[in-house]
Amino acid sequence: MKEVIAVVRMNTMNKTKKALTAAGIDSMFAHECQGRGKGLVDSKLLSGASQGYEEAIALLGEKGKLYSKRMLTMVVPDKQVDAVVRTIIESNQTGKPGDGKIFVLPIGEAIRVRTGETGGKAL
Amino acid sequence: MKEVIAVVRMNTMNKTKKALTAAGIDSMFAHECQGRGKGLVDSKLLSGASQGYEEAIALLGEKGKLYSKRMLTMVVPDKQVDAVVRTIIESNQTGKPGDGKIFVLPIGEAIRVRTGETGGKAL
Amino acid sequence: MKEVIAVVRMNTMNKTKKALTAAGIDSMFAHECQGRGKGLVDSKLLSGASQGYEEAIALLGEKGKLYSKRMLTMVVPDKQVDAVVRTIIESNQTGKPGDGKIFVLPIGEAIRVRTGETGGKAL
Repeated sequence: MKEVIAVVRMNTMNKTKKALTAAGIDSMFAHECQGRGKGLVDSKLLSGASQGYEEAIALLGEKGKLYSKRMLTMVVPDKQVDAVVRTIIESNQTGKPGDGKIFVLPIGEAIRVRTGETGGKAL
Repeated sequence: MKEVIAVVRMNTMNKTKKALTAAGIDSMFAHECQGRGKGLVDSKLLSGASQGYEEAIALLGEKGKLYSKRMLTMVVPDKQVDAVVRTIIESNQTGKPGDGKIFVLPIGEAIRVRTGETGGKAL
Repeated sequence: MKEVIAVVRMNTMNKTKKALTAAGIDSMFAHECQGRGKGLVDSKLLSGASQGYEEAIALLGEKGKLYSKRMLTMVVPDKQVDAVVRTIIESNQTGKPGDGKIFVLPIGEAIRVRTGETGGKAL
C-alpha cells in the first residue's frame, strides 16, 4: 500500500477525478491548498536572497506568493501506483510551470471503519 | 511514532474528538476535505468505465462525486495506535457506506516548536 | 527525501514563508486546519477523564476545543531537513503553548508533473 499525494491546478480536478475513476481508482480525498513550486520563483532572486540581500528577500516574499491548488490524496495497492501516477500526469501535464507534483509515501496500515477490514481489503 | 489519518463524516467530529480526548489523545488536527470511497460507486458503472464505455465514464464523473468529509490527523506513540483506531471506529461505525477510512503512516521524527523537544516527548 | 509537516500559528505564516524561501526552500504547500496540542489541555481534566469522570469528559469537549492553525507541507532532500526544522522553529518559537509541531515523514518517490522528472530532480 502507498499513499499518493498530488498537488494539481484547481481547474484540472474534474478531468483528473474522471480519469482516475476510469482507471479503477475509486477512493480519493481532495482539499484546497495554497502552494508553489520551484518554477515559480526567479532564480536570481533566490540567489540574491541566499546571499542575504534584504531587497531580494523582500521581493521573494511577494513573488514567491502561494497559488490556490488542489491536493489530492489516494491510498492504493503497490501495483496501482504506476497507473495513478501516469493518469495524474496525463490529466495535468501542460508543459508549463505549475503543472504540479506527485509524492508517494509508505503506508503502514489501512482500516475501513464500516467493517473493520484492514490492508488491501480496506482500499 | 505513527501518523494516524482518519477520514470521517462531518457530523461525527465532535463525538470523535471527545472520545479521543477521553482516551488520552490530546493533540490532533482536522480539516475539511472532499472525498469518497469504493462503496459510493456503482460497480456496474466501474466495470463499464474500465472497458472504455464513454457513457459509463461520463456517469462516473457525476455519480462518483466527492462528499464533504473531515480529515483528522494525529501523531501518537506506537503503543497508542490501537486505542486510536478502536476509538475512531467506535465513534464512527454505523455500518453504512461512508463511515470512513483510517490510515497509519510511519513517522521519522516529531519536534515541539516551543521547546525543541523531539520524539515521544514532543507528542 | 522527506516530507516535513509543520502546524503553526496563522499569523506567523508570512514570516515563516519568507524565512523558508531565504533558506532555499522554494516549494511548499499550506492549508488551514483546526488543531490543538497537549499544552492547551488541563492535565487534571485529562486525568479525571481518563478515570471516566463524566464531568471531566464533558469539560474536555469544551476546553479541548480546536484552534485555527496553518499546516505547512514541504518535500525536501534529506540534507535540507535540519535547515527546514531550524527555520520553522526560529520563525515560530515564542515559548508559549501553541507554538506548533513539526513532523518528518519518509517519502518513497517524488514526480514533477510537467517533466516527469523523479527523485531529487523533482523537488
